Amino acid sequence: MKNFLNINRLSKDELHSLITLAHDFKNGKKAQLKKPVYGANLFFENSTRTHSSFQMAELKLGMKLIGINPSTSSVTKGESLSDTIKTLQAIGVDVVVIRHPKTGWYQGIDTDPRVRLSLVNAGDGHGQHPSQSLLDLMTITEEFGRFNLNGLNIGIFGDLSHSRVARSNAQLFFDLGANVYFSGPKKWYPKDFDQYGKFIEPEDVDKLLPKLDVVMELRVQLERFDQSAAGSFTPKAYYEKYGLSDAKAHLMKKTSIIMHPAPVNRGVEIASDLVEAPQSRIFKQMHNGVYARMAILYSVLKSMNLIEEPEYEHIN
Amino acid sequence: MKNFLNINRLSKDELHSLITLAHDFKNGKKAQLKKPVYGANLFFENSTRTHSSFQMAELKLGMKLIGINPSTSSVTKGESLSDTIKTLQAIGVDVVVIRHPKTGWYQGIDTDPRVRLSLVNAGDGHGQHPSQSLLDLMTITEEFGRFNLNGLNIGIFGDLSHSRVARSNAQLFFDLGANVYFSGPKKWYPKDFDQYGKFIEPEDVDKLLPKLDVVMELRVQLERFDQSAAGSFTPKAYYEKYGLSDAKAHLMKKTSIIMHPAPVNRGVEIASDLVEAPQSRIFKQMHNGVYARMAILYSVLKSMNLIEEPEYEHIN
Amino acid sequence: MKNFLNINRLSKDELHSLITLAHDFKNGKKAQLKKPVYGANLFFENSTRTHSSFQMAELKLGMKLIGINPSTSSVTKGESLSDTIKTLQAIGVDVVVIRHPKTGWYQGIDTDPRVRLSLVNAGDGHGQHPSQSLLDLMTITEEFGRFNLNGLNIGIFGDLSHSRVARSNAQLFFDLGANVYFSGPKKWYPKDFDQYGKFIEPEDVDKLLPKLDVVMELRVQLERFDQSAAGSFTPKAYYEKYGLSDAKAHLMKKTSIIMHPAPVNRGVEIASDLVEAPQSRIFKQMHNGVYARMAILYSVLKSMNLIEEPEYEHIN
Repeated sequence: MKNFLNINRLSKDELHSLITLAHDFKNGKKAQLKKPVYGANLFFENSTRTHSSFQMAELKLGMKLIGINPSTSSVTKGESLSDTIKTLQAIGVDVVVIRHPKTGWYQGIDTDPRVRLSLVNAGDGHGQHPSQSLLDLMTITEEFGRFNLNGLNIGIFGDLSHSRVARSNAQLFFDLGANVYFSGPKKWYPKDFDQYGKFIEPEDVDKLLPKLDVVMELRVQLERFDQSAAGSFTPKAYYEKYGLSDAKAHLMKKTSIIMHPAPVNRGVEIASDLVEAPQSRIFKQMHNGVYARMAILYSVLKSMNLIEEPEYEHIN
Repeated sequence: MKNFLNINRLSKDELHSLITLAHDFKNGKKAQLKKPVYGANLFFENSTRTHSSFQMAELKLGMKLIGINPSTSSVTKGESLSDTIKTLQAIGVDVVVIRHPKTGWYQGIDTDPRVRLSLVNAGDGHGQHPSQSLLDLMTITEEFGRFNLNGLNIGIFGDLSHSRVARSNAQLFFDLGANVYFSGPKKWYPKDFDQYGKFIEPEDVDKLLPKLDVVMELRVQLERFDQSAAGSFTPKAYYEKYGLSDAKAHLMKKTSIIMHPAPVNRGVEIASDLVEAPQSRIFKQMHNGVYARMAILYSVLKSMNLIEEPEYEHIN
Repeated sequence: MKNFLNINRLSKDELHSLITLAHDFKNGKKAQLKKPVYGANLFFENSTRTHSSFQMAELKLGMKLIGINPSTSSVTKGESLSDTIKTLQAIGVDVVVIRHPKTGWYQGIDTDPRVRLSLVNAGDGHGQHPSQSLLDLMTITEEFGRFNLNGLNIGIFGDLSHSRVARSNAQLFFDLGANVYFSGPKKWYPKDFDQYGKFIEPEDVDKLLPKLDVVMELRVQLERFDQSAAGSFTPKAYYEKYGLSDAKAHLMKKTSIIMHPAPVNRGVEIASDLVEAPQSRIFKQMHNGVYARMAILYSVLKSMNLIEEPEYEHIN
């Protein structure tokens, strides 16, 4: 796996390998690099969680980091992303992690034979956020003790159309055998999600909740709305109609869990006190994210023959 | 000492420990970490000195740093500071150093049992700048060869109401036995400073200067003024009435020293050539700041059992 | 060499040493530092290439980096560059790499005996970009297998008046024995360049090309134009009249090379497909840049007695 760009392009074996690796890192696995390995994180969109999580993963793997702030880089001089990447390659960067507002920013770059460094997608426009999907999968498999999701009931609720993880997660969970349910404002439901699961009317969610194993709330991405849509949105009305209140959470099974990609709008998608309730895995998701990203980076570095592996190890 | 937030909450013993540690680091003491320790510096307000000084202290202690620029982080998505801190904790950060425009940004966070990482205050709104106070104390104790300040005469001059160090330093020096004097524009004098020392009218400062051991000038923080106040301020008039000119400096004792938290407005608070005059400790303050911050970080790391200490050492 | 500020102030011996060192680093030479060495990169103007190249060089030399973003530093509080540098020195920084919009930002600072740290110029206003000049020289000497440029024919084309490398490269190549030719819009030709070479009218460039060994295109720095000039500039017209098209490139000798300091405006200064054509050394220049900067930093560190050198080595 030279690049990590799209979670749905990975085979079940590749996914299984990554999840196993992530758990190994969580259990203390160490990586040994064959030579100094240099990484660069290019975040063209704001991020705390993903950016710092990738940095932590890189440092834990022993990588050295070149710091670049796109807002003060040559991209403001009109340089193309492809040329920026080739520049970093020429300078000696081995892996570049990119978040970019353009959906599929990597298209054409990933197939260019002159691009020999590894590309990792940290979020592309309205496309994917595949490292988030991997950490979500890791958190679910850890919770239920198995990699296949056969028969697991997963609800994905909220801003399905603006979310970078809704579609890829829906497809991922469906492919792995889960029963997927959606709900939220109907206008935010992409009709073709029907191929992965079933839309439940908001007024019927109370009947759905008792049978779900996972309730995954999505962030209302107010910052992605156009002005008029944002103007008509009222957080209180959203919460009352679609949010996960304490009352609704009481309908869930004792063994079921609450997830959210964060940052949470407390009191909008979910009651504030539920964020850190026993059923919530929200901060655990962030914790797992570091190990999921270590697995991703380790895999791409390994494909470039940059990992020293002891002979007795047979992982990945 | 799990957190370092407010200099005036520390006991004399704790202060003494920190000062001793700072001097030990200045004299070559090395720290050994039990495991990789990760830090993050969150500066929500501009800084060169404090930000780079903390970085230097962290690097010298062998810490690894997660780089976060608040202006491009999720705080712009409306995330609360508390949630940002919990996110960093989930990711594996051990210490977070924060400068924030909100006075007492740490209130409620420092008492939240879910916040297990260490918090270090690098400046809170109109509140404190406790690492600056510590380095000021370190510089004075170094100069006069003793930790108690009994009978030492210290003048704090200038923009007392906008300064983040004026109040905490006044209280600190008073508590340690110094005689504290204030001067500057009367409208910038907070009346309750009377509990720590005495206001001297600007026209009487010439009579005060010969008996002072320390002349501490404060920065005129034009960037914190509201528009109308800034408009009426003229640097030249300020300098002539309140600034430390060469003529005034000549009235000081040979053994007395000049301090300033910097950045200095040369020719406003103080004559430009005095900044690097033999009596000035301004750049020495910056130099000491690195060791003061090493002492702070070392102490919080020690309280989290992250410091490997040789058995024969009995510091702190 | 305590500071590296102006390429044209270096003797041929110093240049030769630097080029030799750069090649040694490219061939695997390692540096050993006597103690932890701290660097800071202050980029007051946007940069991807130079900033990340210096970081890579610093990391490869084993230096530790203090991260400072001038846009969020005390320079916004009106601090002078000289005071910022002295602050970094007080904090323990050994080398500061600076790009600044002020031509000759280092004047007065480089002669101030209180400034003991090393200064490296990464670009000063309309002045120089001496590390770029060094990597250009490195690339040419590597190509033609010799340090002196006697009889080599070098063309420097394009935006000669706005370029930070045009003048210093012209003088450098002339001093080392090359025949230098210029072309481009006549209004962008500084008349005093006549001392280093010969201006060729754009319509005569076709006759010049077959005899050139190096074709060095300069970036059209639209971001430095004033508004009116930028308004009248049309990239297509520029390309047709002055740009290096495929047709023009066919007139070049097989052994000649194409250079450009980048970022390239593809289709303006040069046809897009020529950027990565066999004759192009554009990405090789970037690659060499890391080693050229390692040589620069190594030399200034050595002058400060910070380099551990094995006895059997006799380089520089």
